Amino acid sequence: MRADYASILADIATRIKQRDFPNARNADYIPALAAVPSDRFALVIRHVSGAEFAIGDADIAFSIQSVSKVFALVLALRSCGDDLWQAVRREPSGSAFNSLILLEQEEGIPRNPFINAGAIRVCDMISSRFANPDRSVAEFLGRLCTNPEIRTDNDVYLSEDQHGNRNRAIAYLMKSFGKLDNPVESVVRAYFKQCAIAMTARELARATLFLANQGVGIDGTQILSASEARRINALMLTCGMYDGVGDFAFSVGIPAKSGVGGAIIGVIPGEFSVCVWSPRLDGSGNSAPGIAALEMLTDAIGRSVF
Amino acid sequence: MRADYASILADIATRIKQRDFPNARNADYIPALAAVPSDRFALVIRHVSGAEFAIGDADIAFSIQSVSKVFALVLALRSCGDDLWQAVRREPSGSAFNSLILLEQEEGIPRNPFINAGAIRVCDMISSRFANPDRSVAEFLGRLCTNPEIRTDNDVYLSEDQHGNRNRAIAYLMKSFGKLDNPVESVVRAYFKQCAIAMTARELARATLFLANQGVGIDGTQILSASEARRINALMLTCGMYDGVGDFAFSVGIPAKSGVGGAIIGVIPGEFSVCVWSPRLDGSGNSAPGIAALEMLTDAIGRSVF
Amino acid sequence: MRADYASILADIATRIKQRDFPNARNADYIPALAAVPSDRFALVIRHVSGAEFAIGDADIAFSIQSVSKVFALVLALRSCGDDLWQAVRREPSGSAFNSLILLEQEEGIPRNPFINAGAIRVCDMISSRFANPDRSVAEFLGRLCTNPEIRTDNDVYLSEDQHGNRNRAIAYLMKSFGKLDNPVESVVRAYFKQCAIAMTARELARATLFLANQGVGIDGTQILSASEARRINALMLTCGMYDGVGDFAFSVGIPAKSGVGGAIIGVIPGEFSVCVWSPRLDGSGNSAPGIAALEMLTDAIGRSVF
Amino acid sequence: MRADYASILADIATRIKQRDFPNARNADYIPALAAVPSDRFALVIRHVSGAEFAIGDADIAFSIQSVSKVFALVLALRSCGDDLWQAVRREPSGSAFNSLILLEQEEGIPRNPFINAGAIRVCDMISSRFANPDRSVAEFLGRLCTNPEIRTDNDVYLSEDQHGNRNRAIAYLMKSFGKLDNPVESVVRAYFKQCAIAMTARELARATLFLANQGVGIDGTQILSASEARRINALMLTCGMYDGVGDFAFSVGIPAKSGVGGAIIGVIPGEFSVCVWSPRLDGSGNSAPGIAALEMLTDAIGRSVF
Repeated sequence: MRADYASILADIATRIKQRDFPNARNADYIPALAAVPSDRFALVIRHVSGAEFAIGDADIAFSIQSVSKVFALVLALRSCGDDLWQAVRREPSGSAFNSLILLEQEEGIPRNPFINAGAIRVCDMISSRFANPDRSVAEFLGRLCTNPEIRTDNDVYLSEDQHGNRNRAIAYLMKSFGKLDNPVESVVRAYFKQCAIAMTARELARATLFLANQGVGIDGTQILSASEARRINALMLTCGMYDGVGDFAFSVGIPAKSGVGGAIIGVIPGEFSVCVWSPRLDGSGNSAPGIAALEMLTDAIGRSVF
Repeated sequence: MRADYASILADIATRIKQRDFPNARNADYIPALAAVPSDRFALVIRHVSGAEFAIGDADIAFSIQSVSKVFALVLALRSCGDDLWQAVRREPSGSAFNSLILLEQEEGIPRNPFINAGAIRVCDMISSRFANPDRSVAEFLGRLCTNPEIRTDNDVYLSEDQHGNRNRAIAYLMKSFGKLDNPVESVVRAYFKQCAIAMTARELARATLFLANQGVGIDGTQILSASEARRINALMLTCGMYDGVGDFAFSVGIPAKSGVGGAIIGVIPGEFSVCVWSPRLDGSGNSAPGIAALEMLTDAIGRSVF
Repeated sequence: MRADYASILADIATRIKQRDFPNARNADYIPALAAVPSDRFALVIRHVSGAEFAIGDADIAFSIQSVSKVFALVLALRSCGDDLWQAVRREPSGSAFNSLILLEQEEGIPRNPFINAGAIRVCDMISSRFANPDRSVAEFLGRLCTNPEIRTDNDVYLSEDQHGNRNRAIAYLMKSFGKLDNPVESVVRAYFKQCAIAMTARELARATLFLANQGVGIDGTQILSASEARRINALMLTCGMYDGVGDFAFSVGIPAKSGVGGAIIGVIPGEFSVCVWSPRLDGSGNSAPGIAALEMLTDAIGRSVF
Repeated sequence: MRADYASILADIATRIKQRDFPNARNADYIPALAAVPSDRFALVIRHVSGAEFAIGDADIAFSIQSVSKVFALVLALRSCGDDLWQAVRREPSGSAFNSLILLEQEEGIPRNPFINAGAIRVCDMISSRFANPDRSVAEFLGRLCTNPEIRTDNDVYLSEDQHGNRNRAIAYLMKSFGKLDNPVESVVRAYFKQCAIAMTARELARATLFLANQGVGIDGTQILSASEARRINALMLTCGMYDGVGDFAFSVGIPAKSGVGGAIIGVIPGEFSVCVWSPRLDGSGNSAPGIAALEMLTDAIGRSVF
């Protein structure tokens, strides 16, 4: 460890608190996300050495939302292997994260597993392989962070379900192209439950460690091969930050995945995993304080993947 | 240096020679590219230590085409600084590299400097700052690889000019949005000349080294700051391989930029720059043997940026 | 009546029988449409004077499919009046009839009532105003053609329902924009039932007469005002023939609406309504023999609306 | 003649003067159009009987702009015949009149001759057939309205040329698809000159008469066959009013073509041609007072083509 992470984190938290994010706002499409206090902020680093550094609201649970897509993908890959890439491509989408336009032009094959269409398709594949798909992603996350209590927040799930018509449109469009194996309604419900999983920043940083550690999780088990872990990182870097992926790579420079709950997970391979959480989103749907904090972090340690 | 690069390169060259690339073909839109012998292959590594490893046709000159976009961007950044990012965005395009559709929807502001629209806009900015824009990119490349003889191949340029109507359409569309400062015809001609620069794989590997070496070129001069060099790498990783950027990041995992002449340059930051050249292109316009060779390379050394 | 319609019709039937339609085929997305004998042909003219001329399979029932959209629109207009045009626009779509692309770009407001999105929205409005929306369009058609036995073909309906996922995608997309009042599943089912109504060419010609007769139906009742009838005709002319609307106006030149069951209804205002039916469709989804027959008809009588 | 046209026109002129068009404005992309007094209004009817009715500024010349596209098309049809339809389609475009998107998707074949791409292609065909293409459309219009002095306004032409970069983009895109026969610059200049032709409303009504009169012009010569004239009318109805074609057919119901100079020409076949001119445009680029006046006219005479 070359850096004094504890003081770097303290410094970042202070600077974020002083800074204004005038155009950033909580997600408001469901009440549960709108109601989270906007000044919540947590930053947790889990080093491959086992050291852990946290500041802020690191032990308050929030809705992980699209961050779940990474872990659902890993779970699906572990059971399907590379066949998964017949069903989902690996290219940036170049348009808003929930757009149907590319999906229609490309005949129901999603551009990548981190846009909604791709994540729904991954959920469909999990549904074909797990007896209880609703629980499988939560249980997998529970294993990864060694907290078996990881659960879907039922109120958030019900809200997602009520506001999920665009995702149903996406799923029915894939279904109409013959690109969804299970019934639409059961797949989208499993998807909503996965998005509604509640975790803390500390738990997410721990769960992400295997991506920084050649596929080895915090309990020492091999979650993915080193090569597969590298590939998930590549996907996060090219597709993980919605329509802001290029700017994020440019200014922060690490593989990362964000969710509209305000979380961002990221890794510097061989060094650490990180989770930042703060609910106010920029125009692309990424946490604005979260991106600022990660930029400060890579500046401070003088490291990115580039 | 942890790897025995000489034997790795020899092994890659042998395997590429044995392998078939059934659907890959030379670019055929201009005669000069179609006429290059399809079995040409070169692979050159330039290590930050100064060591250099080469195999194959490393000293045969070819048309660098879109690889030039990286160096034109660096030249423009050196004179404009971050103002450049007011004119060109940094996001993957999600559609074919010369599409006008996104350019129209986004009112003449190119998605990134590596699609044609963005490269033409960069060329426009160079035209505003250099007395002899036609020569400036070639001279800059000459400095970077320490060969002052780097030149535009005039026959290739004339062919580009004859077949350059789509690029003129792109330039006039930007002009119609008020997003091009200089006359269309002079800008596209400077752009065609830049694309028609002839270099060898060895020269390109040398010219690229500064991106692997914190901004420091092979002659020890600081070409860009370390931070700027990292950012160029981020751009190459998210936008450098046309519509195959996600697959390339996934399977190779290094910042790279390709050209339809069959060259790909890439870097592993802190270690080496690389240039591979082989003229047969895949459906995305990237050298198929080139991608295969780079995948073998990152596999062999067990390293990528992820 | 200036023309000898009986002999004109006989002549058309003969010529259609002799002619080949090499690339035209029955709709095949549901078995019930694929199974109709491909050489079926009917042509019926209903003159405003009350005279009726028929040739071919004029009394064989078929699935009216999208022809129903005209009558559903009229039914909705009768109960909503011009408020309907707040919910549905009146512009040609310029792309395939079931595309979601324009619908997404235009935030859930359909381009016109004859593309699927628009017809589903009209069905939604009917559902808000009629106790038994499933039956209302069939009953309205029964009144118009004075055959109270007009019904949905239940087998066709069940097939539509099974293959209706793209329409569900469309409906959920509108729902996600807040542009659908009733539950998606009930609206699309009513829509499928409406499309599955079975009628004969004679019945459709009769039901259409009011559009040629200043809004007055075959039983003398005023179905729409003369001005409203003219406007429905305008809509059919600009939006009634899927993506072949321009060619049809050019070569035939009358307001018309087609369905994938092979029917086309049309009018020459002040003179007659016409229904042609023959199941083989061209690339735009319009009956190829039907268009040919209507072109022969307007040629023979030397009349179109132009 | 069933109607008292003189008093109908007087009434319309009075009502238009009293009415406000709050969101309508002169075209402002070139000074010559912006400078026309906004309250100019002319309405001229030319009956097939030879009678002529005019009110307002009927003898003030203005820039006919896209109205010229109809006459250029007729001129090209007279020399190419139906081969023209190999080069230009006949379908409504469903998007803004100068969009490149459809043109790219459809590989350089314009949707119809009244969008800019189609009109430029028609101009290209004229350029291949007339020694002096710049003058040919003006001379043809001069013959049609029996005023040999019809000319391009040179100041307007020079302005068009200066602001014509989007049209150049369109022309180069067609050229890149191999869909333009002559040099881009010469074709677009001929196109700009054609758009810059100056005429009065009276002259345009006269020039348009043949479309209402089975192809016979005001001097009794056959300009097109009756069948061809009907087809031009069909094209105007489906494609003549930019993105407002459906609403115009719905509310006015006659074949018409508008230009951004504020003119609209139209016909009721068998009865009369009409030209209305008033420079303030609605959001679709059509004269707002012009559309209102034509709607009053078809209401007053109780006639449309429907």
